[in-house]
Amino acid sequence: MSGALGSWIDGLPAHSLPADDRGLHYGDGLFETLRIRAGRPRFLEAHLARLNAGCARLAIPFVAGDALRQELSTICQATPAAAILKIIVTRGSATRRGYASAGDEQPRRLVTLFDASPLPESWRAGVTLSFASAPLADNATLAGIKHLGRLESVLALREAQAAGAAEAIFTGADGRLVSGAMSNLFVAKAGVVQTPAVDLAGVAGVMRGIVLRECAALGIPAGVGTVTRVDLESADEVFVTNARIGVVPVRRVGEHRFHMDALSRRLADHVEALDA
Amino acid sequence: MSGALGSWIDGLPAHSLPADDRGLHYGDGLFETLRIRAGRPRFLEAHLARLNAGCARLAIPFVAGDALRQELSTICQATPAAAILKIIVTRGSATRRGYASAGDEQPRRLVTLFDASPLPESWRAGVTLSFASAPLADNATLAGIKHLGRLESVLALREAQAAGAAEAIFTGADGRLVSGAMSNLFVAKAGVVQTPAVDLAGVAGVMRGIVLRECAALGIPAGVGTVTRVDLESADEVFVTNARIGVVPVRRVGEHRFHMDALSRRLADHVEALDA
Repeated sequence: MSGALGSWIDGLPAHSLPADDRGLHYGDGLFETLRIRAGRPRFLEAHLARLNAGCARLAIPFVAGDALRQELSTICQATPAAAILKIIVTRGSATRRGYASAGDEQPRRLVTLFDASPLPESWRAGVTLSFASAPLADNATLAGIKHLGRLESVLALREAQAAGAAEAIFTGADGRLVSGAMSNLFVAKAGVVQTPAVDLAGVAGVMRGIVLRECAALGIPAGVGTVTRVDLESADEVFVTNARIGVVPVRRVGEHRFHMDALSRRLADHVEALDA
Repeated sequence: MSGALGSWIDGLPAHSLPADDRGLHYGDGLFETLRIRAGRPRFLEAHLARLNAGCARLAIPFVAGDALRQELSTICQATPAAAILKIIVTRGSATRRGYASAGDEQPRRLVTLFDASPLPESWRAGVTLSFASAPLADNATLAGIKHLGRLESVLALREAQAAGAAEAIFTGADGRLVSGAMSNLFVAKAGVVQTPAVDLAGVAGVMRGIVLRECAALGIPAGVGTVTRVDLESADEVFVTNARIGVVPVRRVGEHRFHMDALSRRLADHVEALDA
């Protein structure tokens, strides 16, 4: 793949994986995307915690711990100071045919390193979002974790990009806002920051958690709750977050333009400056 | 994997596939499971038609046609007369990082052949079903096709099997019945057969289509529509279908028992006897 610098399966360099992996066959696994900066993965513990929460939710008997930390450390030592690192953990090779796992599978981890291509111009100065035409399906069992079944994001992003937007906004079936297709969504009004709950749909982004934590540290009122389209369109500022982009102001959603970005910029600079 | 007799990637024997395949990374692909009988795949054209419909829905530029037919024919000649064959088609290796496809990916197909292990005893005499605790998420964009994101079925089947059931019944968010986790669901009352629509959730099973078609051929009134839990519990007979099991009567759902199976047996025998 363009931009891939290397890949490792269960700690050994490898470019292919067994064709019977349940991650491929059923989406039976999870992933994390980390940013490497100054040779270190940012917010590593938060990523490993979410990965472990996902494994627990899916009953995949894998615990991201010291072995994975050591592996990532070794990989980082041999790579550019700035990079993107993706960790996939699957339930492993199927030991029998069919959806139901037998329980004796050996979880498999795939680590891929990518060059840290600079953010596209379209992201740097603030982005345009568009609404996904299909709502994101509610599924409390799978909400919050970053499992491998991401077709909704694949389709929504293609649609958004075809419309000239950098990112899609997902609504839930009831019309509430959920998240971006590859990011979490925040609105700010009168100095108060709000991001949608992700207990029915969406991913609990690591950067989302960092932003909420850092808002608290900075004395900026911030919370999780219901965010509607009206909330969005009446917001002073809107921004999106993920581990790679950090905090990025939103300039436009459909025909609605946002003219303020002071709070977004402050948070972006603050998060970027964190020693983590 | 136990029971796997061989696998082929893009027509060549292979046991592994590139680690950058988007099927693994995002569930960005589709699959079919076919039954081989007397050395021939049953209902091959119906499977290829659904696969092609799925590729069209996901804009994967793959058309299952003569090349795949020829490949399957060659595989079948070298294998036991009875087997199970699984075809996965993915968008192929990622050509750039991230959910959004670049559009220049080369679709990849993986064909795996499995021995035709006999139906478990628990299926032969009719099965017990249990209701999945989590509703199946509505998603009109992905409903009907057999995409790779099947975690809901993985989790529901584990739950059902832990409860001693052979299969789980999915309800939609509104409580209507949708399907089994690995099968389609039919109810029969006063000689009329009904199966839930799969335009919001579920898979449009090939065997489901065959059963609807053959009901028409046999003069059995059959239709697609809303099926509720009350419809199920007041039915004379209930049966489940898929390409491997054909038509299997349901003996019990939770605490509710079904004592009739004449229509189910008739359909099972009729479908089994079809020269296809």
